[in-house]
Amino acid sequence: MEKLQIVPLGGLGEVGKNMLALEYGRNILIVDVGMMFPESDMPGVDYIIPDYRYLRGKEDRIRGIIITHGHEDHIGALPHFLQEFNAPVYATTLTRGLIEVKLNRDLQKRVKLQPMEPGDTIHLGPFTVEPYHVCHSIPDAVGLGIDTPLGLVVHSGDYKMDHTPVDGWPSDIAKLAEFNRRGVLVLLADSTNATDPGTTPSESSLNVALSDVFRQANGRVIVATFASLISRIQQVMDVARTFGRKVAIAGTTMLKNVKMARRLGYLNVPDDLLLPLQDINRLPPHQVAIIATGAQGEPHSIMGRLAIARHPSLRIVPGDTVILSSHTIPGNEETVHRVINRLFQKGANVVYHPVAPVHVSGHASQEEQKMLLSLLRPKFFVPIHGELRHLKQHALLAQEVGIPRQNIAVVENGYILRFSQDSLEVGERVPGGYVFVDGTLVGDAVSSQIIQDREALAASGVCSVVFTYNRRQGGLIGEPRITARGVAAAEVLDVLIARAYPLIQQTLQATRGATSQADIERAVERALSNFFYEQVQSRPEMIVVAVPLG
Amino acid sequence: MEKLQIVPLGGLGEVGKNMLALEYGRNILIVDVGMMFPESDMPGVDYIIPDYRYLRGKEDRIRGIIITHGHEDHIGALPHFLQEFNAPVYATTLTRGLIEVKLNRDLQKRVKLQPMEPGDTIHLGPFTVEPYHVCHSIPDAVGLGIDTPLGLVVHSGDYKMDHTPVDGWPSDIAKLAEFNRRGVLVLLADSTNATDPGTTPSESSLNVALSDVFRQANGRVIVATFASLISRIQQVMDVARTFGRKVAIAGTTMLKNVKMARRLGYLNVPDDLLLPLQDINRLPPHQVAIIATGAQGEPHSIMGRLAIARHPSLRIVPGDTVILSSHTIPGNEETVHRVINRLFQKGANVVYHPVAPVHVSGHASQEEQKMLLSLLRPKFFVPIHGELRHLKQHALLAQEVGIPRQNIAVVENGYILRFSQDSLEVGERVPGGYVFVDGTLVGDAVSSQIIQDREALAASGVCSVVFTYNRRQGGLIGEPRITARGVAAAEVLDVLIARAYPLIQQTLQATRGATSQADIERAVERALSNFFYEQVQSRPEMIVVAVPLG
Repeated sequence: MEKLQIVPLGGLGEVGKNMLALEYGRNILIVDVGMMFPESDMPGVDYIIPDYRYLRGKEDRIRGIIITHGHEDHIGALPHFLQEFNAPVYATTLTRGLIEVKLNRDLQKRVKLQPMEPGDTIHLGPFTVEPYHVCHSIPDAVGLGIDTPLGLVVHSGDYKMDHTPVDGWPSDIAKLAEFNRRGVLVLLADSTNATDPGTTPSESSLNVALSDVFRQANGRVIVATFASLISRIQQVMDVARTFGRKVAIAGTTMLKNVKMARRLGYLNVPDDLLLPLQDINRLPPHQVAIIATGAQGEPHSIMGRLAIARHPSLRIVPGDTVILSSHTIPGNEETVHRVINRLFQKGANVVYHPVAPVHVSGHASQEEQKMLLSLLRPKFFVPIHGELRHLKQHALLAQEVGIPRQNIAVVENGYILRFSQDSLEVGERVPGGYVFVDGTLVGDAVSSQIIQDREALAASGVCSVVFTYNRRQGGLIGEPRITARGVAAAEVLDVLIARAYPLIQQTLQATRGATSQADIERAVERALSNFFYEQVQSRPEMIVVAVPLG
Repeated sequence: MEKLQIVPLGGLGEVGKNMLALEYGRNILIVDVGMMFPESDMPGVDYIIPDYRYLRGKEDRIRGIIITHGHEDHIGALPHFLQEFNAPVYATTLTRGLIEVKLNRDLQKRVKLQPMEPGDTIHLGPFTVEPYHVCHSIPDAVGLGIDTPLGLVVHSGDYKMDHTPVDGWPSDIAKLAEFNRRGVLVLLADSTNATDPGTTPSESSLNVALSDVFRQANGRVIVATFASLISRIQQVMDVARTFGRKVAIAGTTMLKNVKMARRLGYLNVPDDLLLPLQDINRLPPHQVAIIATGAQGEPHSIMGRLAIARHPSLRIVPGDTVILSSHTIPGNEETVHRVINRLFQKGANVVYHPVAPVHVSGHASQEEQKMLLSLLRPKFFVPIHGELRHLKQHALLAQEVGIPRQNIAVVENGYILRFSQDSLEVGERVPGGYVFVDGTLVGDAVSSQIIQDREALAASGVCSVVFTYNRRQGGLIGEPRITARGVAAAEVLDVLIARAYPLIQQTLQATRGATSQADIERAVERALSNFFYEQVQSRPEMIVVAVPLG
């Protein structure tokens, strides 16, 4: 009998760019096509998309693309993928709204965005997809039951087991129980919080913490959170109303999302609660709340600009209370702490997670992960969505719950997993690494070599040396032009450059004779590089151009 | 009456480069001269030292330098400071040992390193210094009572209230009670953990966690920790002995520290417990433990090299257990997580804080901070050693304990604090920022502008353009030489460069006439920068050199 293949193309061994392919015969189903933000040692990279080379040449097999929810790490690479691959995209209402704004006019025309709702049954070749509702930090998120000729595959999506979510719509545990009755062959489940013990608190638990802060605030309250965290926006609106404050929205994405969420019915806000940002000074501070983006301290975000007093209309004043209702994405700690410190400097009282309980995660913690495993009792288990340390920990939890070790596949991107009804085999590895996007440059155009060059430039700067020389006699003609960036201050440089001139002359004299232009350039480069290292213990990147005359 | 001045020169508004000056009349006492490690947006910077310009011209007033303990953020800038300033340095035995190895031969000869022990009374001009023992993550740490003509100043040092420290020598609470009886004018206290509720667990509490891991390990156990964390090294040695393992040391600093600590009596290790690293393969894996440096994932450290299999003699093999007994310094999260993931990839079981309780902090948490405040009941309080958010939080704790708000000074580096017996005044601000060290370049030689240039280079790379032109007719002579680093891959560049040639020619023709060389260079730079932006949406740094001929 034909085997079922699951090919993880992103999100296994990393947090971000989630993407995987289910393959049965000549049929492929894709789940999520996300992007990832660069780490701090990837300068100039805008974002990273999955390496989906594996799918090239198999375009005609792709039956459909299912998107679990509208976060960037699940939809962000769609515009790239859809340039190359033509397949219907299935997503829930809010998710479709978020995808649409990312597509250019061409793609909007060409791509079929198909509606999908929890409870639907979608037939795509040999796959039958049954989306079910899950709670996450964005509305309209789903997990997936995917029936295949070999058995049922369940994909958890990003989820938490919130029994009292803000929108009153808990994760669909009944559906999970139904899957259990039907028998689950493979579970693919979110590992993000696999190292966090206990249960992730309910979104509703924030009402108390937010109310406390609002109650004690005498001045304005400014709440920074993620623009996609619609339920958080709802909570802030509700608390603001309780305490007699009007709410202004700061930030283009936040404004756009609030508008879309209200239109689609995901946000319940009376018109008279809202206040245009330019009108906040008409009310006394204690009647004003502001919701803003930039909880990660991004320099161009609202909070980033408030921290350095660069926002065109808004200024932090003593008496303001700022709530960072978000968690800090690993790698952003320095930036976020800097923003917090600067807000304090400006006289604000800053309330932030985890010092105050003003944020809860959107991902399941260990007890919920065990609950999911126990509910579904899958034959095989593949932890997804996490660094290797998360996947490993998730696998340990599965073993505790009784899944045999040999039925669990802890793999990173690219390993082909082959399932029969009673076997799991980890096959060969296909590409699953980083594809960098920098402006319009994608993939090979901005390789790891380029990134390494940028790091070298950052470490020591660059020094350009241009000189003319007498092709026949080998002597220097005129003065060399030495230009440096990022090496040392002008006063230091001037001294170094003055001492480099005779060095160039000497090097030229030493190479006098039948030496080629390239050899001369190499010799000067070597001499100057050593000279710099002796003088300032750093080796700037050298670009040497010798112009032969005569 | 003369006022007492306290001038914080480092460590207030940041974690690192601790340094402050007490000033009475024409007498200055300095406490600590530390350095700080650069943040991720300071490429090429080796480390940062305090800006102590305030002390220049006051050399003859400095009565002494007191060092509280041997961590880099308290001693690291001494070699720089002592080049310029001549004053006796007082430190405890281990601290002196750690300072000595940092001084070059000249300084070792010139600088008077004075012994100091808890219980001593050191008279330095109008100041009487009484060091007292505190527990911290390095032995031989002290806090200071500093008697001044206006009253007693207490400097907490870095401390925790550990009642069961590994070396059996708890923080000297009796001395604090004595200070209380004498009356405390000002308390300066460590704020590092001011946002952590409760009490920092005792070092001894780690015995249980470490024993658990050793008990379950079948293969080798490799423990990574800080080389200065002597008590942790002692604990690992003790646990290893209990479980019948010999211990090898990996890492030059670790070896040096173990040697020094044994010689000075801070580490109690029988000779036959130790095993040279090259001999570990002579024993079965379950009889081997290794202590190594690199818990922050530094690329050249032992753990950093093990993670990428670049250590000359040591390899991670399946069955190894790795314990990271350390906390991740903020900003290092990505690097540390990468090391953990790579160790997992190589088949090791990785046990790390905070997922397992294998590390405790060396700094007091909130309840201990309140304890110190209650014990001393100072008239005035200055939180030190922390980012602004820590200082603010520490001030809140002090208010809870009953110190009036107006008697607390929350300030960042450089604000001169003036005390009389019953008043506190925040005075003018003197320099207290960053002094960068990059190789042999210090301070102005490697300014913020240089750092910004490096960041620009990292973001978009650099492009050098050299061409010769006819000075009289303005036309291009020969082909321009375009060299790029960190911009885009060769295939992309070749296309861009080919299209840039005619652009240079056009620009030259447009400027034909009485244009200067500098104007021509500027025009070409502008044209090419715009061309690159159009083509690849990035603006590499341009270095344009036009060579006039004829």
